[in-house]
Amino acid sequence: MKKHSRSSSGTPDVGVTSVAGFKAAGMAAGIKKNGRPDLALLVADAPCTAAALFTRNRFPAPPILLTKRHLRGGHAQAVVINSGNANAFTGDAGLRDAEAMARATATTLSLPTRQVLVASTGVIGEPLPIERIAAAIPTLAERVSADGGGAAAAIMTTDTYKKETAHAGRIGKGEVSIGGMAKGSGMIHPNMATMLAFLTTDVLIAPALLRSALRDAVDASFHAISVDGETSTNDMVLCMANGASGVAIQDRGSAYRQFSTLLQSACESLARQIIRDGEGATKQIEIDVTGAKDDRSARRVALSIAGSLLVKCAFYGEDANWGRIVCAIGNAGVPVDPRKIGLTFGRETCVPLIRNGAHLGQEAETAVASLLKGREIFLSVSLGRGPGKSRFLTCDLSLDYVKINAAYRT
Amino acid sequence: MKKHSRSSSGTPDVGVTSVAGFKAAGMAAGIKKNGRPDLALLVADAPCTAAALFTRNRFPAPPILLTKRHLRGGHAQAVVINSGNANAFTGDAGLRDAEAMARATATTLSLPTRQVLVASTGVIGEPLPIERIAAAIPTLAERVSADGGGAAAAIMTTDTYKKETAHAGRIGKGEVSIGGMAKGSGMIHPNMATMLAFLTTDVLIAPALLRSALRDAVDASFHAISVDGETSTNDMVLCMANGASGVAIQDRGSAYRQFSTLLQSACESLARQIIRDGEGATKQIEIDVTGAKDDRSARRVALSIAGSLLVKCAFYGEDANWGRIVCAIGNAGVPVDPRKIGLTFGRETCVPLIRNGAHLGQEAETAVASLLKGREIFLSVSLGRGPGKSRFLTCDLSLDYVKINAAYRT
Repeated sequence: MKKHSRSSSGTPDVGVTSVAGFKAAGMAAGIKKNGRPDLALLVADAPCTAAALFTRNRFPAPPILLTKRHLRGGHAQAVVINSGNANAFTGDAGLRDAEAMARATATTLSLPTRQVLVASTGVIGEPLPIERIAAAIPTLAERVSADGGGAAAAIMTTDTYKKETAHAGRIGKGEVSIGGMAKGSGMIHPNMATMLAFLTTDVLIAPALLRSALRDAVDASFHAISVDGETSTNDMVLCMANGASGVAIQDRGSAYRQFSTLLQSACESLARQIIRDGEGATKQIEIDVTGAKDDRSARRVALSIAGSLLVKCAFYGEDANWGRIVCAIGNAGVPVDPRKIGLTFGRETCVPLIRNGAHLGQEAETAVASLLKGREIFLSVSLGRGPGKSRFLTCDLSLDYVKINAAYRT
Repeated sequence: MKKHSRSSSGTPDVGVTSVAGFKAAGMAAGIKKNGRPDLALLVADAPCTAAALFTRNRFPAPPILLTKRHLRGGHAQAVVINSGNANAFTGDAGLRDAEAMARATATTLSLPTRQVLVASTGVIGEPLPIERIAAAIPTLAERVSADGGGAAAAIMTTDTYKKETAHAGRIGKGEVSIGGMAKGSGMIHPNMATMLAFLTTDVLIAPALLRSALRDAVDASFHAISVDGETSTNDMVLCMANGASGVAIQDRGSAYRQFSTLLQSACESLARQIIRDGEGATKQIEIDVTGAKDDRSARRVALSIAGSLLVKCAFYGEDANWGRIVCAIGNAGVPVDPRKIGLTFGRETCVPLIRNGAHLGQEAETAVASLLKGREIFLSVSLGRGPGKSRFLTCDLSLDYVKINAAYRT
């Protein structure tokens, strides 16, 4: 998938504003104590089709509730995002604050309030400083630009770098673009580091089709880095489509499939950036499972390996501890024949360690140990039962992860 | 539940041999490289009713397969246990080794092979040194004694102390005893530290009733320390009943209930000893959930909290990070009304931190923070929906846990 550059037209080659017709900005509104940027605005020149996927946590934060409500019609023109405060577990007052945040933005942009979506990320359980946010919105709206204006930096919390992407491709005879920005640093950490992603595109598409394409793309990307099923109160992936390319996607035919592939590439790029920024992570681990009864079984096996503390600790220790991997496979709750299991490490250099359930000896183990010294680890698991496959990304469990999360609020 | 002492009769006051009619021994057979005790034998004077619960891992180790087969009739007279090698993922050769281990024991004790059960714990995927084991069994059998003969020490792997218990109580007009020994050090660590527990008792009971009582006792004890559903290839809890007390349990009436309570106390004692010995653990955490729709929902909430890396890291950091706890409750997948949630810390001194979904302020947080400095942490979660309750034990996630498990095989 080639990267799409529009720098000749003044629009940057990555990010939500890489798609013509979208502008964005970020600024410091005083929500974060350290004075870093904490308020972002993404606005389209015209109303867009919009679809989103939300956290499955039972306590969705007020901004999630509000955005769900505003998205019922399947359209939106702007999204305002703050970091530094999740506005979560804040009750009725929190919902009023989320509404006020949307209203202030709508008033400033002269839009109906329903066209404005809201997202928040940061500390749980503290009242949103809505006055500061409302006071900053007019300035923020003045600053929106086609170069993104620092929006991707303003949505960061524990992230150590901003995450942006841009993709372009042909659908039929037309060319379409997809841009995106995200925040989240690696593993689950619900208290301060919600995963948020915002995607823009210029296809012309109905809300239901957009939602369907987004769901598939997220399953293959962001959901494939959710290592243990934990979700935060604020997770959200949003896609806005302004139709400016003139390329219409009207049914589930080939245009839809091409768009889905492109959208998946954009989501995968952002998901990989999130994993690389994992809290305390020293290694990025890609787990490919093949030969399962079906994709669902493969996914459960991949998730069981990716979610095993012991496997993650072993990777941190650069130990080819295949016993823990096999144990995790056995814990996945799907039928597996131990005599058919294969484990292979590496991508360019592939080193089989277990074949047909049998360990291949000390030489193989030594070769694998040297592969584990790299920053990227590839583990292929074959189950020899059927066509099911799944891929997961995760990171190792390091001393720094514990340090970061033990000391977090202190 | 008073501790039962028989030291006047020469039997120790704790362990599997605290029940008259059982003898045991442990010795070093050369399975462990460091020369520590690694082979144990528990033998009854007469055939016993026996019941066991096994790992749900899809790759049960050969000793598990053998013991399941031998237990089909519901009777056994001896169990031989080795540490240092799990005889897991060892294929057909592993099953032949497990059979040889039972046969050697049966020959030495002049018992039918079916009366001998086998358990193994240790490294996965290495052939069992069956010759050394078979050579040691005659010596081991000579050493069995009513004082336990070091059996509890011989089943240890990463354990830092041996785990034993003894309980006694009245059932109707008779007095019955329950003894036990276990191994396992805290959190899940499938590669080397299987959870094994062996219980002895002198009630007269049919296999089906014993299995039922054991299942209930294990649900309330060992299963309440299984922090993330991971089980190893070798987990086993076995109970042998020799009937020597003359107290017969013939149906699910009051005698059964009294016996169940006693068995649960014995299992809880061993489970607490395992959690206290948790790998790298600095704190023992008891989570009591009440007010759930039903016990099953309460259990899911307790498990979600106990299994959250972020909660465990926060406890390690002595941080009353209630946002993470609330998030874990929301991730449990059961209906919860956030406005009814209560969180209270402490047992003797109870400090509410969240009541009806609202944070009780900085003073409460400071008081909780001081409670978190202790080695035992008590967290009560009330959900305000119904009569469902559940209790879980877990430990914190410390730097040492990562260090131990990253460096394990090296």
